[in-house]
Amino acid sequence: MDKNKIEVGIIMGSDSDLPIMEDAVKVLQEFGIGYEVKVLSAHRTPDQHSEYSKSAVDRGLKIIIAAAGGAAHLPGVTAAHTTLPVIGVPIKGKSLEGMDSLLSIVQMPPGVPVATVSINGAKNAALLAVSIIAIGNSEIKNKLVQYKKKMEKDSLAKNEKIKF
Amino acid sequence: MDKNKIEVGIIMGSDSDLPIMEDAVKVLQEFGIGYEVKVLSAHRTPDQHSEYSKSAVDRGLKIIIAAAGGAAHLPGVTAAHTTLPVIGVPIKGKSLEGMDSLLSIVQMPPGVPVATVSINGAKNAALLAVSIIAIGNSEIKNKLVQYKKKMEKDSLAKNEKIKF
Amino acid sequence: MDKNKIEVGIIMGSDSDLPIMEDAVKVLQEFGIGYEVKVLSAHRTPDQHSEYSKSAVDRGLKIIIAAAGGAAHLPGVTAAHTTLPVIGVPIKGKSLEGMDSLLSIVQMPPGVPVATVSINGAKNAALLAVSIIAIGNSEIKNKLVQYKKKMEKDSLAKNEKIKF
Amino acid sequence: MDKNKIEVGIIMGSDSDLPIMEDAVKVLQEFGIGYEVKVLSAHRTPDQHSEYSKSAVDRGLKIIIAAAGGAAHLPGVTAAHTTLPVIGVPIKGKSLEGMDSLLSIVQMPPGVPVATVSINGAKNAALLAVSIIAIGNSEIKNKLVQYKKKMEKDSLAKNEKIKF
Amino acid sequence: MDKNKIEVGIIMGSDSDLPIMEDAVKVLQEFGIGYEVKVLSAHRTPDQHSEYSKSAVDRGLKIIIAAAGGAAHLPGVTAAHTTLPVIGVPIKGKSLEGMDSLLSIVQMPPGVPVATVSINGAKNAALLAVSIIAIGNSEIKNKLVQYKKKMEKDSLAKNEKIKF
Amino acid sequence: MDKNKIEVGIIMGSDSDLPIMEDAVKVLQEFGIGYEVKVLSAHRTPDQHSEYSKSAVDRGLKIIIAAAGGAAHLPGVTAAHTTLPVIGVPIKGKSLEGMDSLLSIVQMPPGVPVATVSINGAKNAALLAVSIIAIGNSEIKNKLVQYKKKMEKDSLAKNEKIKF
Amino acid sequence: MDKNKIEVGIIMGSDSDLPIMEDAVKVLQEFGIGYEVKVLSAHRTPDQHSEYSKSAVDRGLKIIIAAAGGAAHLPGVTAAHTTLPVIGVPIKGKSLEGMDSLLSIVQMPPGVPVATVSINGAKNAALLAVSIIAIGNSEIKNKLVQYKKKMEKDSLAKNEKIKF
Amino acid sequence: MDKNKIEVGIIMGSDSDLPIMEDAVKVLQEFGIGYEVKVLSAHRTPDQHSEYSKSAVDRGLKIIIAAAGGAAHLPGVTAAHTTLPVIGVPIKGKSLEGMDSLLSIVQMPPGVPVATVSINGAKNAALLAVSIIAIGNSEIKNKLVQYKKKMEKDSLAKNEKIKF
Repeated sequence: MDKNKIEVGIIMGSDSDLPIMEDAVKVLQEFGIGYEVKVLSAHRTPDQHSEYSKSAVDRGLKIIIAAAGGAAHLPGVTAAHTTLPVIGVPIKGKSLEGMDSLLSIVQMPPGVPVATVSINGAKNAALLAVSIIAIGNSEIKNKLVQYKKKMEKDSLAKNEKIKF
Repeated sequence: MDKNKIEVGIIMGSDSDLPIMEDAVKVLQEFGIGYEVKVLSAHRTPDQHSEYSKSAVDRGLKIIIAAAGGAAHLPGVTAAHTTLPVIGVPIKGKSLEGMDSLLSIVQMPPGVPVATVSINGAKNAALLAVSIIAIGNSEIKNKLVQYKKKMEKDSLAKNEKIKF
Repeated sequence: MDKNKIEVGIIMGSDSDLPIMEDAVKVLQEFGIGYEVKVLSAHRTPDQHSEYSKSAVDRGLKIIIAAAGGAAHLPGVTAAHTTLPVIGVPIKGKSLEGMDSLLSIVQMPPGVPVATVSINGAKNAALLAVSIIAIGNSEIKNKLVQYKKKMEKDSLAKNEKIKF
Repeated sequence: MDKNKIEVGIIMGSDSDLPIMEDAVKVLQEFGIGYEVKVLSAHRTPDQHSEYSKSAVDRGLKIIIAAAGGAAHLPGVTAAHTTLPVIGVPIKGKSLEGMDSLLSIVQMPPGVPVATVSINGAKNAALLAVSIIAIGNSEIKNKLVQYKKKMEKDSLAKNEKIKF
Repeated sequence: MDKNKIEVGIIMGSDSDLPIMEDAVKVLQEFGIGYEVKVLSAHRTPDQHSEYSKSAVDRGLKIIIAAAGGAAHLPGVTAAHTTLPVIGVPIKGKSLEGMDSLLSIVQMPPGVPVATVSINGAKNAALLAVSIIAIGNSEIKNKLVQYKKKMEKDSLAKNEKIKF
Repeated sequence: MDKNKIEVGIIMGSDSDLPIMEDAVKVLQEFGIGYEVKVLSAHRTPDQHSEYSKSAVDRGLKIIIAAAGGAAHLPGVTAAHTTLPVIGVPIKGKSLEGMDSLLSIVQMPPGVPVATVSINGAKNAALLAVSIIAIGNSEIKNKLVQYKKKMEKDSLAKNEKIKF
Repeated sequence: MDKNKIEVGIIMGSDSDLPIMEDAVKVLQEFGIGYEVKVLSAHRTPDQHSEYSKSAVDRGLKIIIAAAGGAAHLPGVTAAHTTLPVIGVPIKGKSLEGMDSLLSIVQMPPGVPVATVSINGAKNAALLAVSIIAIGNSEIKNKLVQYKKKMEKDSLAKNEKIKF
Repeated sequence: MDKNKIEVGIIMGSDSDLPIMEDAVKVLQEFGIGYEVKVLSAHRTPDQHSEYSKSAVDRGLKIIIAAAGGAAHLPGVTAAHTTLPVIGVPIKGKSLEGMDSLLSIVQMPPGVPVATVSINGAKNAALLAVSIIAIGNSEIKNKLVQYKKKMEKDSLAKNEKIKF
C-alpha cells in the first residue's frame, strides 16, 4: 500500500466543520490511509465541487466523505456526480439539534444513496471508509481487527476504575 | 406583457411531483404568466439541472420554482447556480410527514437563500412568484389585488352555508 | 437608483430580534438598497402593524422582511395585508430549537404565501430580497453576481488554511 | 340566562374546519349557551376578522373559540384584538400530524395568551368555555357538575362490556 | 373587589418551578387579584393535590394555574377533580426542549380540557386568568384594557432605540 | 400457583383501548397468570382510579399495566398511589403518531417511575409483567424460557419461506 | 436479606454514563439491595455483554438496569439474552436532546420488552427495581412505603419556603 | 466474477420486512452480485445472529445489509461483530413515521459505524453495496456507470410526458 496515494477524499461545506472532521483525519492517519481534505460547498462553490466529484474516480479516490450542516446537500450532490461510495456526516448546527442535517443527508431518493453516519460522527465516517477499504486490503483488514480488539480491551478496562 | 414569454421555470425532482405542482401551473395560467415545466433532478440529472439553472437568467427567466421530496436538494442547488430568486416547495413523501423535505429546503446556509413555502404548497409558490413579478408589472399587480379580493369574498361567502 | 428610497421594510415582533436582524441590514447596506427597520408586533401592536402592511405598496416598498419567534404570526399576517412579497425569518426562542417559529411561518394556507428562510436566517432574507430586486435592476443584479463570485472565492480560499 | 344571548363566538379559518368544530357547537347547545359560528381568516379576511375581534366585547361576547390549521394564526391574532379569553383549537392538516397548528397556537409571546386545547379538540374548547362561564353562573356550574358526573358514570359503565 | 380574597390558585409540581412561576405571581399582584401558591405534585403528594383540587370551588377559587415539567400530569389531574377552568403551564426540563411537558398538558382527552399556554409561559397563564376574571369584573377589565395599551405603547417605544 | 388469583391488573383510560390491550390479556392467559381488566380514567373517574390503585397491594396484585393515549396520565398517576411496579403502554391516537402518549408516560419525575413499553406495545407489557413474576416463580420462569425458545424457533422458521 | 447478595446488575455502554448512573447506585444502597456496576457495550464488547446477560439468571440476579445513549441498543440486546426484567435508561447525548436514546430503547419489537424510564432517569430505574423486588420482599416493601412517605413529606415541606 | 459467490448478506429482523427488502434483491440480481437473504433478529435470535455476523468475513461476504424497524438494533449489533461494512435500512413501522428506526440505526457510538440509508431505502442499500463492490471490480463499476446513465436518461424522458 502506497501511503502517499490518496484513497479517501474528505470534503466539507464550511471550514467551521473542520474541528469536527479532524476526528476523521486522525483515524485515516492511524490506519495509514492516504487522504485529502477540502472545503467545497454545494452552494457556494458548486462548479468546483461537481468537478471534484466527477474527477474523483479517475484521480484514484475510492471513497468520499462529505460533511455538511443545515440543509446539508453536499453528500447527496457528491453522490450524484460519482459512482464512488459517498459517506455523509451530518453536522449539528445552531438550531434543531442536528435533525435538519441528518434528514437532508439520509433521506436520499431511490438511485443515489449516501452512507449516512451519526450527527457529528466524523470518526465513524472514517472507520466506515476503513472497513470498505479493508474488503480488498488484508493489511488494512488486519489493522481493523486489531483496532476493534483494542477498543474492546479499552472498554473493558473502564471497569477497573468504577468506584461503587 | 407577452404571454408567450417564459418568466417562471417550474422544476421538480421527479414526475411523481407533477400532480402536486399542477396547482402552481394553474395559478400562473390564471395570471397569464409564461412558464415552463421540467423534470430535473439534482441527483439523477445533475448536469442538465446545473445547465438549466445557470442559463436561466440569460433565457429571460425571472423566477425558478423548484419542488422536491425527502432529502430535497433541488431548490438549494438551483439557488447555487443562479442569481434568480428560487422558490422551494417541500413535497411530502412516504415517511416523516414532509419534515425531511421542509428542513432540507429551508435550512440553507448563509449566502444562498431559498424562498420556502409550505409542504405541498405549490399554489403558494406560484402566488409568491406572482407577487414578485407584480413588483415591476402593474397589470399583474392589479390582477393580484383582484385575486386577493376574490379570495376574501369567497371566504366570507362560506358563512352563508353554515347551518348551526 | 436612489439610495434614499426605501425599498425593503424590515419588521420584527420584538426588539430582542434586533441583534439577529442586523445581518439583514448589513446586506442591504452593502448592496445600497434603501430600507427601514421597525419593531411591529402582530400581537402587541396589531393596528399599527396592519396599517404599516396595508400602506407598504403605496409608500413604494417592494418587499417586506418580517422576523418573529415562537408562535410567529408577523410574516403571515403581513402577507394578509399586502400584495408585496413577504419574506419570513423564524427566530429561535428559548425552547423547541426554533421549530415553533419555523412551522408558524412556513405552513401558510393556500392563497397567502410567505417566503420562508432558515431559522435566524436574516442574512439570507436580505439576499433573497436582493435577488428579487435584481430581477428588474441590472445594477443590483451585477452586484449580486459579484457577491456570489466573492463568496465562491472566499470559500475556496479557506482551503489554504487547512493544516492536515 | 337568556339562551338567545350570544356568549361564545366560534370562529375558524376555513369552512373545512366545520366538521371538527361541530363538536364544540353540540356542547354549547347541550349547556344552553348562546353562540355564533363564523368563517373568518386571519389571512384571507384580515379586516373582517379584526373588526369581529375588536367588537366582540361590546357585542357582549364572553369568550372566543378560534380554530385553525397549519400556520394557525387565527387564535393569536384574535387575542391581539380583544381582552376576552381566546381558546385556540389546533386543526390537524395534511402533513406534520397537527404539530404545526399546535405550535403556531400555543407558543404565544408574553402578553397575549391563547388558551390552547388538544389537536382537533373542539369538544374540549367548548367545555373550557363552559367552565369559564360557570364561574359566574351557578346554573351552568350545576350543569357542568352533572356533566362530569354523567361522564364518570358512562366511563364506569364501559366496564360492564369487557369480555375478558 | 376584596384583594385578600383568593381567586387564583397557583400550583406546581416542584419548587424548582418557582422561579418560572414568579412571573405569574407578579401579574396577579399588578392586577390586585388574590392568589395562593402551593407546591403540590400529582405524583409525590397525590392525596393532598386531589383534596386541594376538589375543595377549590368551595373555597372560592375561580381559576387554577398548574405548572409542571416532563410527564406533566398536574394540570390534567387537577382538571379531573374540579369544574374550575385549569390553566396549564408546561415547564421546560433538562431534555426534549419542553416538548414532553407541552404534549403531556395540551393533549387532554375529550371531556377534561386544560387551557394550555406556551412553554414556561407563566406570565401568559396569569394574563389568561386575568382575562377570565375580567369577564365578570369591570374593574379588572379596565385594568386589562390599560395593560394592553401600555404594552402597545412600550412596544412602539422600542422603535426609538433602533440605530440602523 | 392459583390461576384464579389475580396478580396483574390491566387498566386503561378508555374502552377504545381494549382492542390494543387484548394482546396483553392473551399473553397472561397463555402463561396462566390471573388478571383483571378495568376501564379507569385518571381524568373521567379519578376517584375510582385512585381507590383502585391504593387498594391494589392489599388485594394481592403484584403489577399494574396501565394504558392510555394523548396526554396519557393514567400510568403515572397509578404509580403515585401504589408501591407496585406500574407498566405503561402508550396508545397511538389520531394525531402526533403516538409521540404524545409516549412522552406523557415515560418522562416521569424522580421518585415515581413508570416502566414504559413501546407505542401500542400491549404484548410486551404483559411479557414484562411475566418476567417480573418469573423472578419469584420457577414455573412461570420455565414457561418464559420455553416462550423465548419458541419465539426463536418461529423466527428461524421464517427463513424457509424466503423465495429469493 | 443478605446485603452482600447481588440482586441488581447495573450496566452501561460507556463510562461517560457513570455520573448519571450514580443516582441508581445511591437508591439501591439506601434500600440495602446488593448490586454490581459494569461498563459493557453492545457494540464494543458484544461477547462479554452477551455472556453477562446470559449468565445473569444463574448468578442470581433479579433485574438488570441498562443505560445507553444515542443508538442505545444495550437494554434491548440485554433483554434478548435473558428472561430477567430489563430496565432501560436513555442517556441524553450531544444532539437530539435524548430523543434518539429514548426511541432506541422503548420501541422494542413484540416479544422482547424493555422497561423504559425517563431520559437520564437513573434514580427512577433503581426505584422501579426496588418496587419489583418489593413484590416478594416485605422488608423492602416497607422501606418503599416509608420512602414514598418521606418523599411526600419533603414535597409538602417545600411549601414553607414559598415567599410570595 | 463468480455469480454464485455470495458477496452481500441481506438480513432483516422480521419477515414482515421482506416486501420492502425485495427492492434490494432486485438491484443485486440486476448487477449479477451474489447474495443471500436471512431473517435474523437481534432480539429473537441473538445467538444465530451473532454467529452469522462473526462468520461473515470467513464465509467470504463483503458487505452486510441489515434492515429493521422500531428500536432497530440489528444493523448496529451486526457491526459490533464484524469488520465488514454494514449498511442499515430503517423500516417504517406503525407509529412515529420511521423516525424511531432511523435514529436507532444512524446514531451509532464512536467506533462502530453503520452506513445508514433512507427510511425503507432498500434499493439504495443495494446500490450502496454495488458502489462499494465497484471499487475493486471494474465490471461492476462499468455496470454502475451504465446504471446511472440509464437513470439519467429515464429521468429526462419523463419530460416528454408533461402535458402543461
